[in-house]
Amino acid sequence: MSHEPSRPQAADVRMRGFSHRHTVSEALAWLDVQVRPLGSERVSLAQAAGRVLAAPIVSTVDVPGFDRATMDGYAVVASSTEGAGAYSRLPLAVIGDSMPGRPFDGAVTAGQAVRVMTGAPIPRGADAVLPAEFVDAEAHGGAIAALDAVSPGKNVGRAGEDIVRGTQLLRPGRVLRPQDVGVISSVGIAELDVVRTPHVRLVVTGNELLAAGTPPHGFHIADANGPMLAALVERDGGTVDFRGLVRDDADAIAGALLGDADVVIVSGGSSVGLEDLAPGLVAQHGELAVHGIAMRPSSPTGMGRIGDRLVFLLPGNPVSSLCAYDFFAGRAIRVLGGRPSEWPYRAMRGRLTRKISSPIGRLDYARVTVSDGMVEPLAVAGASMLSSTTRADGFVIVGDDSEGFAAGADVDVWLYA
Amino acid sequence: MSHEPSRPQAADVRMRGFSHRHTVSEALAWLDVQVRPLGSERVSLAQAAGRVLAAPIVSTVDVPGFDRATMDGYAVVASSTEGAGAYSRLPLAVIGDSMPGRPFDGAVTAGQAVRVMTGAPIPRGADAVLPAEFVDAEAHGGAIAALDAVSPGKNVGRAGEDIVRGTQLLRPGRVLRPQDVGVISSVGIAELDVVRTPHVRLVVTGNELLAAGTPPHGFHIADANGPMLAALVERDGGTVDFRGLVRDDADAIAGALLGDADVVIVSGGSSVGLEDLAPGLVAQHGELAVHGIAMRPSSPTGMGRIGDRLVFLLPGNPVSSLCAYDFFAGRAIRVLGGRPSEWPYRAMRGRLTRKISSPIGRLDYARVTVSDGMVEPLAVAGASMLSSTTRADGFVIVGDDSEGFAAGADVDVWLYA
Repeated sequence: MSHEPSRPQAADVRMRGFSHRHTVSEALAWLDVQVRPLGSERVSLAQAAGRVLAAPIVSTVDVPGFDRATMDGYAVVASSTEGAGAYSRLPLAVIGDSMPGRPFDGAVTAGQAVRVMTGAPIPRGADAVLPAEFVDAEAHGGAIAALDAVSPGKNVGRAGEDIVRGTQLLRPGRVLRPQDVGVISSVGIAELDVVRTPHVRLVVTGNELLAAGTPPHGFHIADANGPMLAALVERDGGTVDFRGLVRDDADAIAGALLGDADVVIVSGGSSVGLEDLAPGLVAQHGELAVHGIAMRPSSPTGMGRIGDRLVFLLPGNPVSSLCAYDFFAGRAIRVLGGRPSEWPYRAMRGRLTRKISSPIGRLDYARVTVSDGMVEPLAVAGASMLSSTTRADGFVIVGDDSEGFAAGADVDVWLYA
Repeated sequence: MSHEPSRPQAADVRMRGFSHRHTVSEALAWLDVQVRPLGSERVSLAQAAGRVLAAPIVSTVDVPGFDRATMDGYAVVASSTEGAGAYSRLPLAVIGDSMPGRPFDGAVTAGQAVRVMTGAPIPRGADAVLPAEFVDAEAHGGAIAALDAVSPGKNVGRAGEDIVRGTQLLRPGRVLRPQDVGVISSVGIAELDVVRTPHVRLVVTGNELLAAGTPPHGFHIADANGPMLAALVERDGGTVDFRGLVRDDADAIAGALLGDADVVIVSGGSSVGLEDLAPGLVAQHGELAVHGIAMRPSSPTGMGRIGDRLVFLLPGNPVSSLCAYDFFAGRAIRVLGGRPSEWPYRAMRGRLTRKISSPIGRLDYARVTVSDGMVEPLAVAGASMLSSTTRADGFVIVGDDSEGFAAGADVDVWLYA
């Protein structure tokens, strides 16, 4: 369905409702062919954690670059400790120290020892480290006594033991963990290529809206969607470009739609009413591929393209906005940023306390609370109640091929985090 | 054990090993009485997501602040639609529009209708919204025809329906979700109190170290722990103060230990060798409460306090550093920041492909790979191999009361993320 003609423009259908609704699967099928990871950008190690690797990391060095002690003790010629024991102490002449970054200059021969710290280079001639606890360091005259024997190679970390030059350490697509950044640092790489961050223009429309956090007064309400969507975009690895509320005015909205961005999210005015300008503008300047989706909430959701920009039209209703973001816009942002398309929510199984009903042909996003493995659906009324998403611990999805779940059924719950 | 005298200073034990090791439980018991959430700071909505609420959010307004339409349609006196149907169309005179933020000024009486958009104020006199799809808007002379009846209150969202003034919306301790920020915005709150971010001074010592990302040469190695620990601290909600590598020099280390911070993490020089200066310095300037822990890796880990600063001495070995951070320093940073003490790792059950052995009395942190529910321990050799933590998918903990797990046993795996 990716090349299906655009849906009718808003002006044609006015207050008649949607003439046709896409299924969620159809909408996702369209979306999934639109999104591929963006190109790369170069970042320093300090910025790398949590980013997505765009090119393989290959070591050009051995780690360690030299044989080193893996314990504190004495570097020796192993064969010269043969026969040593608690009751057959063997004297060894200490000829120097090897410290990390400060090696012993000379060579060790049989009967000699160089005191070494963990991580210090093994001196020439030595082939083992006799651990400190097997040594009597109180012996007289610069000598120590071995209280045990060591075999060749014992307590020595060989050059390249951790990483051999030429090894691919990390593959493209890896979401970099803290320890990955450590490994990259250890092979001497200070900058690396990661998938570029999706730039998301956030366009919040509605003449009734006051700027976020403004005490509501008269018939005006404070913008809830702007700060919520900004936080969601950042959670999913995007950067947000928000330039203040936009009037329900075709020129103002068109200007925002045509700005520089990888993704444009329009909040509000996404339906088929008189003041729902955005769908018509997307159709006029690009392609309105999906408009109206068989789901609850969020049915008045639209998706399309204008040039290289992917455009999401989210309902102004805050719960619908959250749900439509999670189903469509968030998925696109994650994939553009090289991340897995899946929800960043943890799933659990739980048992329903009450039934959830939903007609065949419509997908439902049912907010629930969870306590001791029991899953309680919140009252269905009021898709407009943003407070329900803070009361909810997560949600249950009823697919469009299902009439819902009976009380007592075991269901998958996605937990908000 | 929280008030037990300090462990012997490094100078006393030299290269003899630890005279005593604390159990992990003892170390955690000491730590857990040291840490309480820090005080609060004020942030704007835009900075609030992911932060931890320090004071309750109580609404001082009703949301919505007025009765509003929950569907597009016509505001009417419900009783005047009684008897309407597809075959008994009732005419209604349209006397105006009510748009979001732009209400209709007059009043509605029986037989009249005001066109309303979703979210628009319900005009005086009207008590229901007749949805657009139950109306023939093509009737002549400014009139429409009702094709169905509505009952009073239908499709009207009442003032306070979402949030009633005086309601506590969110409790202290809440890690703020995107939708929480939306709700806070909707009640007109632009700034809020969150738990202050722990300030973490990161002190990376070792004369053998080159700055992170420097190609290793000679007997010098590039710092892997600095960038790894910085990323871990940020993951756990702390801010990092890193001022470059510190020489193995008592004055330099003491200066860093005494700097301004909630937490000081010292990487390297944490053991009992000659160049392990940090433990003695902590004991000298404060309390070295724990030094030497019965675990593998990370046994040369120390913890203590200097004034208000909590100090963690982590082994220089990168794997030990990661493990000790996760067990102790990370937990402290999370709790100081008001977050749950638990690991931020997802747990799963899986079946071991090979046995994991560990002596009674020592806790083991065994890195594993996971594939199709099968858990494969990585080769145990080389606690120093940071690359093992990038190869690993996670780890299995063998408690100090256990000798390990047999091949085929089902075990809990903590997955790195």
